[in-house]
Amino acid sequence: MIETLNQAFCALPGVGKKTAQRFVYHLLERDRNGGFELAKALVGAMKHVKHCTSCRTLSEKTLCKICANDNRTNAQLCIVETPTDIHAIEQSGVYKGKYFVLSGYLSPIDGIGAAELGLNELEQKLHCQNIEEIILATNATIEGEVTAHYISNMAKQFNVRITRIAHGIPIGGELEYADINTIAHALSGRKEYN
Amino acid sequence: MIETLNQAFCALPGVGKKTAQRFVYHLLERDRNGGFELAKALVGAMKHVKHCTSCRTLSEKTLCKICANDNRTNAQLCIVETPTDIHAIEQSGVYKGKYFVLSGYLSPIDGIGAAELGLNELEQKLHCQNIEEIILATNATIEGEVTAHYISNMAKQFNVRITRIAHGIPIGGELEYADINTIAHALSGRKEYN
Repeated sequence: MIETLNQAFCALPGVGKKTAQRFVYHLLERDRNGGFELAKALVGAMKHVKHCTSCRTLSEKTLCKICANDNRTNAQLCIVETPTDIHAIEQSGVYKGKYFVLSGYLSPIDGIGAAELGLNELEQKLHCQNIEEIILATNATIEGEVTAHYISNMAKQFNVRITRIAHGIPIGGELEYADINTIAHALSGRKEYN
Repeated sequence: MIETLNQAFCALPGVGKKTAQRFVYHLLERDRNGGFELAKALVGAMKHVKHCTSCRTLSEKTLCKICANDNRTNAQLCIVETPTDIHAIEQSGVYKGKYFVLSGYLSPIDGIGAAELGLNELEQKLHCQNIEEIILATNATIEGEVTAHYISNMAKQFNVRITRIAHGIPIGGELEYADINTIAHALSGRKEYN
């Protein structure tokens, strides 16, 4: 029974045998109540959390909070890879538009194509809704870039501004410690200084 | 519901907000089955895992596997802080005696005294059973040392050999990278070389 729990914890990303053991002993020795609560929360979430029908993020309701919020403009659509990315952007507090979650990136080798990323729905959205700008906020990885490129090509047929979030030196970051790719991006993406 | 699950994961040792979020999204997006299984394993373990009545380790049965194993000698008793320590010693494969789990160390400030560590039961064991040697395998921390010292004092009244596991340079470790306390221990604990 202890072993079963150990293995179940090992299924979590980044959790190996030692960490799983630490979790198990902590719960059994010090926090059985926490163990029961975690089990309850797990069942609740696994059963009831679905995807927002509009932006595809994880949500308990048919429409997520952001999609259901009439104060947010429909004119801007930010395209991200995961629901976590929405969370990160929301914390910055500067974006007032809506989102669209791909839940991954294009990866034909793993059988993840346009359909799996919901690009048909995205095309429908661009066709039917009054979207003025799509912001490509996929990750700055090769896969993220390829996906951004693909979406930008697809969106060109619509009368919509297509932008990509800026890549460069992080705020508070020191040039000395930035990697060469970041520096190359920061230089090629330089802007007029007012 | 997502937030509740996030917080439940945060109760695990070493799991912060970001890691909890990663767990949650992994389970919801990629492995709902794993989520249900984890919940089931949690409830099973929290309900049915008790403590071995003889050595106090975590066990589903009244007697744990090691205590119930007649091939292991009762003459040696290895005293450890946690059930994880038993696991570590068992993996070395050199110990064939029994164990006694303190489930912690002496810490009067936290209200953890002799009774909480089961030292009364330990005294009973030394009194009634034919134990020839107790091996103090508490951690090499100040608390572990104090606890070892206390138990050794208590055990002196019985006709029993009292030993402490050796502390020194780890096998494969280099002197150059060992900390000063370890080197001091390694020197003061030196043995005749045959």
